[in-house]
Amino acid sequence: MIIIMKPNADSSDIEHIIEIIKEKGLAPHISVGTNVTIIGVIGDKTKLQDAPLDTIPSVDRIIPVTESYKLSNRKFHPENSIISVGNTTIGPNNLTIMAGPCAIETEEQLMQTALAVKKAGATILRGGAYKPRTSPYSFQGLEEYGLQLMDQARKETGLSVVCEVTSHRAIESAIKYVDMLQIGARNMQNFELLKEAGRSKMPILLKRGIAATIDEWLNAAEYIIAEGNPNVVLCERGIRTYETATRNTLDISAVPVIKSKSHLPIIVDPSHATGVRDYVAPLSKGAVATGADGLMIEVHPCPECALSDGPQSLTFEQFEQLCNQLKPYAALEGRSF
Amino acid sequence: MIIIMKPNADSSDIEHIIEIIKEKGLAPHISVGTNVTIIGVIGDKTKLQDAPLDTIPSVDRIIPVTESYKLSNRKFHPENSIISVGNTTIGPNNLTIMAGPCAIETEEQLMQTALAVKKAGATILRGGAYKPRTSPYSFQGLEEYGLQLMDQARKETGLSVVCEVTSHRAIESAIKYVDMLQIGARNMQNFELLKEAGRSKMPILLKRGIAATIDEWLNAAEYIIAEGNPNVVLCERGIRTYETATRNTLDISAVPVIKSKSHLPIIVDPSHATGVRDYVAPLSKGAVATGADGLMIEVHPCPECALSDGPQSLTFEQFEQLCNQLKPYAALEGRSF
Amino acid sequence: MIIIMKPNADSSDIEHIIEIIKEKGLAPHISVGTNVTIIGVIGDKTKLQDAPLDTIPSVDRIIPVTESYKLSNRKFHPENSIISVGNTTIGPNNLTIMAGPCAIETEEQLMQTALAVKKAGATILRGGAYKPRTSPYSFQGLEEYGLQLMDQARKETGLSVVCEVTSHRAIESAIKYVDMLQIGARNMQNFELLKEAGRSKMPILLKRGIAATIDEWLNAAEYIIAEGNPNVVLCERGIRTYETATRNTLDISAVPVIKSKSHLPIIVDPSHATGVRDYVAPLSKGAVATGADGLMIEVHPCPECALSDGPQSLTFEQFEQLCNQLKPYAALEGRSF
Amino acid sequence: MIIIMKPNADSSDIEHIIEIIKEKGLAPHISVGTNVTIIGVIGDKTKLQDAPLDTIPSVDRIIPVTESYKLSNRKFHPENSIISVGNTTIGPNNLTIMAGPCAIETEEQLMQTALAVKKAGATILRGGAYKPRTSPYSFQGLEEYGLQLMDQARKETGLSVVCEVTSHRAIESAIKYVDMLQIGARNMQNFELLKEAGRSKMPILLKRGIAATIDEWLNAAEYIIAEGNPNVVLCERGIRTYETATRNTLDISAVPVIKSKSHLPIIVDPSHATGVRDYVAPLSKGAVATGADGLMIEVHPCPECALSDGPQSLTFEQFEQLCNQLKPYAALEGRSF
Repeated sequence: MIIIMKPNADSSDIEHIIEIIKEKGLAPHISVGTNVTIIGVIGDKTKLQDAPLDTIPSVDRIIPVTESYKLSNRKFHPENSIISVGNTTIGPNNLTIMAGPCAIETEEQLMQTALAVKKAGATILRGGAYKPRTSPYSFQGLEEYGLQLMDQARKETGLSVVCEVTSHRAIESAIKYVDMLQIGARNMQNFELLKEAGRSKMPILLKRGIAATIDEWLNAAEYIIAEGNPNVVLCERGIRTYETATRNTLDISAVPVIKSKSHLPIIVDPSHATGVRDYVAPLSKGAVATGADGLMIEVHPCPECALSDGPQSLTFEQFEQLCNQLKPYAALEGRSF
Repeated sequence: MIIIMKPNADSSDIEHIIEIIKEKGLAPHISVGTNVTIIGVIGDKTKLQDAPLDTIPSVDRIIPVTESYKLSNRKFHPENSIISVGNTTIGPNNLTIMAGPCAIETEEQLMQTALAVKKAGATILRGGAYKPRTSPYSFQGLEEYGLQLMDQARKETGLSVVCEVTSHRAIESAIKYVDMLQIGARNMQNFELLKEAGRSKMPILLKRGIAATIDEWLNAAEYIIAEGNPNVVLCERGIRTYETATRNTLDISAVPVIKSKSHLPIIVDPSHATGVRDYVAPLSKGAVATGADGLMIEVHPCPECALSDGPQSLTFEQFEQLCNQLKPYAALEGRSF
Repeated sequence: MIIIMKPNADSSDIEHIIEIIKEKGLAPHISVGTNVTIIGVIGDKTKLQDAPLDTIPSVDRIIPVTESYKLSNRKFHPENSIISVGNTTIGPNNLTIMAGPCAIETEEQLMQTALAVKKAGATILRGGAYKPRTSPYSFQGLEEYGLQLMDQARKETGLSVVCEVTSHRAIESAIKYVDMLQIGARNMQNFELLKEAGRSKMPILLKRGIAATIDEWLNAAEYIIAEGNPNVVLCERGIRTYETATRNTLDISAVPVIKSKSHLPIIVDPSHATGVRDYVAPLSKGAVATGADGLMIEVHPCPECALSDGPQSLTFEQFEQLCNQLKPYAALEGRSF
Repeated sequence: MIIIMKPNADSSDIEHIIEIIKEKGLAPHISVGTNVTIIGVIGDKTKLQDAPLDTIPSVDRIIPVTESYKLSNRKFHPENSIISVGNTTIGPNNLTIMAGPCAIETEEQLMQTALAVKKAGATILRGGAYKPRTSPYSFQGLEEYGLQLMDQARKETGLSVVCEVTSHRAIESAIKYVDMLQIGARNMQNFELLKEAGRSKMPILLKRGIAATIDEWLNAAEYIIAEGNPNVVLCERGIRTYETATRNTLDISAVPVIKSKSHLPIIVDPSHATGVRDYVAPLSKGAVATGADGLMIEVHPCPECALSDGPQSLTFEQFEQLCNQLKPYAALEGRSF
């Protein structure tokens, strides 16, 4: 931690800071510059938690040197994590395709889709039973019945299944039926939900918040892992920017950034990132070539009839074509698929 | 609702759309342009919820004409709402000052602050018992004990009290001790929490999400009101932008935008918006002059010792000076204070 | 300047950095932390310009301690600047109202407007002769003829006049006819234009770039002042964010931030910031109460007939009402108007 | 064009609009909805340029149906453009690699780099002679002498060369020495410069503005093409967002969006987009797989000694490795390289 003093800070101001640092059992290191004095703090900075130096008027600013997330940090866990989900694994040797409808609507819709995506190459079925919707008047999901259909789909197809959970109650239900819990973008900083997801010990798919920094995202993962659950997979799904040509802006750079800062796998969701069906295939190829560990893609037997997010869903045929296109790219990246 | 067809849509495409519209009991209205055809839909568009026309390939885009929020919409409720909180009211005739520490730390800290802010002119005491923190290793709040201290403070001072709630469990506790529940920025689209806040029938202070549009914010209010709880007060607390000179960017325009689109009161939180103590006073004056119904300001007996957000907290003396400065501005706006 | 080394940097890496620093005649200051080593650099850091330490693999990052702008920095010029423009001044004792049409269209339109805004209290007439338009097919301005009309207006009314310049050629023409040159948002980092504006020695109204940080804005001012022209007035006109309820997001916090970092006056343009006529009056009051030195407001004899930006222009009557409303707010801020 | 009336608009309001539309020789089309009336306008909407309907109080908003850019629009030019630059072409059959230093520093630096990038597979040499820098005190480029070095490099190596131009004067010089002019991000809406670039008839590399929408970008291209110069290549170089882990946020979706809206080639600059050397290779692969027509990559003989942007420059060895890695990806996309 580095403390930059204001230009007008005098020696008594600096002495005051040094005292506090020493009181907490830490070592100060002073650099007197031409204009300003800088004080480095050596030791475990959490000891300063109840002494907020940045509120002292003579302090200009404080610069953290190390990240606040530890368990999700590659510095302390250099090798890539491999996360088991049902009978498949997510990590450096696989390209994991999660596919399915945005919302589970009917048994027929889900079963047809499960068979189609399995045939094309997906290993995990996605489908929403609890749908967070901007308006209270939009379709909110089939809830527990949707989960039961997911359970039926995994039994019939052998696919692993993932469902979003939006509350304590949803987690309690979902753990009975699915292989992986998804925390959605809107709940990325719902810390109570993160803690419960941690306590569930289930594999967690943690979507990036709609305007979350990568640092906040890894801290959200830290909430889960700190509960004793290291089974976290990150999902980049686009961030909010001024551009309106796509629903969100896919932050593809998040893939190499996460790879450099964390050991957790990261997948990409081009369907939610763009909201436009025609952009899903080129961005899927791009995500694989950039190093993503997998993709999450919306597929629907009849996008025209979908209760939510139809415009971005692929038909079975489009999805199969895409999987075929992806295979040589996965091979170039050394990934099985 | 307006449907804009693609330039290459032919008459059978257009016929297909018209059929769907009629099937749902709605009236289509066709305009054939030089390049494109446009179809207006007349009637209650929620009837089209299960027929997502925007997924039809010949459709270019769909433009909603009316807002999806109804109960929070000024169109259907032209007069300003006045919300009662404990023994005070928030609305067009008052300037409501909510003040207190970011986090409740000790009985002494809270009681001293309560007395100081009351003396200066605040009518509502704020204080966090459940703190949503980016890192799991930061101070997370006193939880129920913090709520008990708030209850004690209101009994001793006569101030009304507001506390943030972050979970079902927190709501269950808080309703026993406080006058108003706060939904924080990170939970603005935690729809389960919004529904429970609605069912509580308590006055709700709904902070704007960190990257929420005004439309999403009013839809979040709609979730609460749709549960039969019209007692919603909005709080602008800065949005996330690229600028780093302030912690967030205070969107002061939200005040007149909300006043034009909704009947709900809106207050402004310059402390969280900027994160810098020196900017709180000028922005407080600016917010009042722009038409805000109140302010939420962080005050701490010793900002230097605060467990969270010290750099933006005012001392008792600074807060009293600010209240004195605000009085003539409130008077110009016709507000008691 | 602070150099943060990577955790794996060894003593030879650190020695290498120290050598470079010493070679340039600067003093290094080393702090060896638990995880990382930090090197402070004492002295004039421009000496390191041709030795980009941040490219050395063992360096994690470099943190500048002092701002790169000097002449516009309050640290080196503590008192507020007062800028003379024609027969008026912009600075702490005045509230300067600049008003007029977005684009100059006809002699009649400009003269009528000049008389009306003068009567209401404006001291500077604005009007665009060179219009930067997103599409090449939109009205581009009357160019030199527009400038001649501005000259005529100032002679007939005694108002000072300001016009945007978009090229070297436009500056050459404008200096013959107007009292102040405006650099628009789209040209805030057109550094050639900034240098020429500096060489003109005319008062310059420097609008903030559409996505410029405050730091970049003050560096743009530095380009002008570094040419020997200290007559710079800043204008906040809204920044680009994800919110679409207003055309841009007025960053009202820029007023206190600029006041703390710079000695230059700052005015606010609520017309361009919002693009909505109804929001101009509340935000004008808010800007004055926040401490702005002035306002720039679009006024048009017939907004319905305006060739550009009609939706945000005030009528003469609306403008007069606004000026009357603003007077007590200016008085509270100790400003003549 | 669609005009949405306010709910309270009465028949005389609507009649007024219809009259204006007819007066201009256009055809109105009225849809009377349950709450609001909508008026479609059929015909060439530029006829309405001097009748800004959106300023009429009874009008709620106006929605354009067709884009304002025409010459850069794929609707009117369905086949992909192929742009000749010196002795190479940019378009669907090639993967064009532009590489070189951020700034031209010395003859030796440029010649060494030119030979190295040619050997690895680049066909166009980049290098900055006029550097737009945030601070006036940073290195501003070698100007005309830099251009002469570029000319020498193309003669010695046979590479085509591209240089940024920042003013009228720079264009006059550059056309003597280089094969392609670059308009940088900060000048994307410097419309005078765009017009001059158009009049030069040279191939133009148009970088996206730092916060430009895709619509604004294509309108900027329109300025160039409207001067009779169809030789425009677009370059995505990252946009400004709240995320700070990378210098900008690479908007990779711009590749398929541009491909769908325009016939112009688009290349990607991962060096400026991220500002971090380690992210250049994965994002280069990603851009190629997403469909980009080429890449612009910074290469320097000694990034540690670079006068600007060293942290993102590749060494010769890193660049050669990257080119080798890219070859199979280009092949999958059907591109020669």
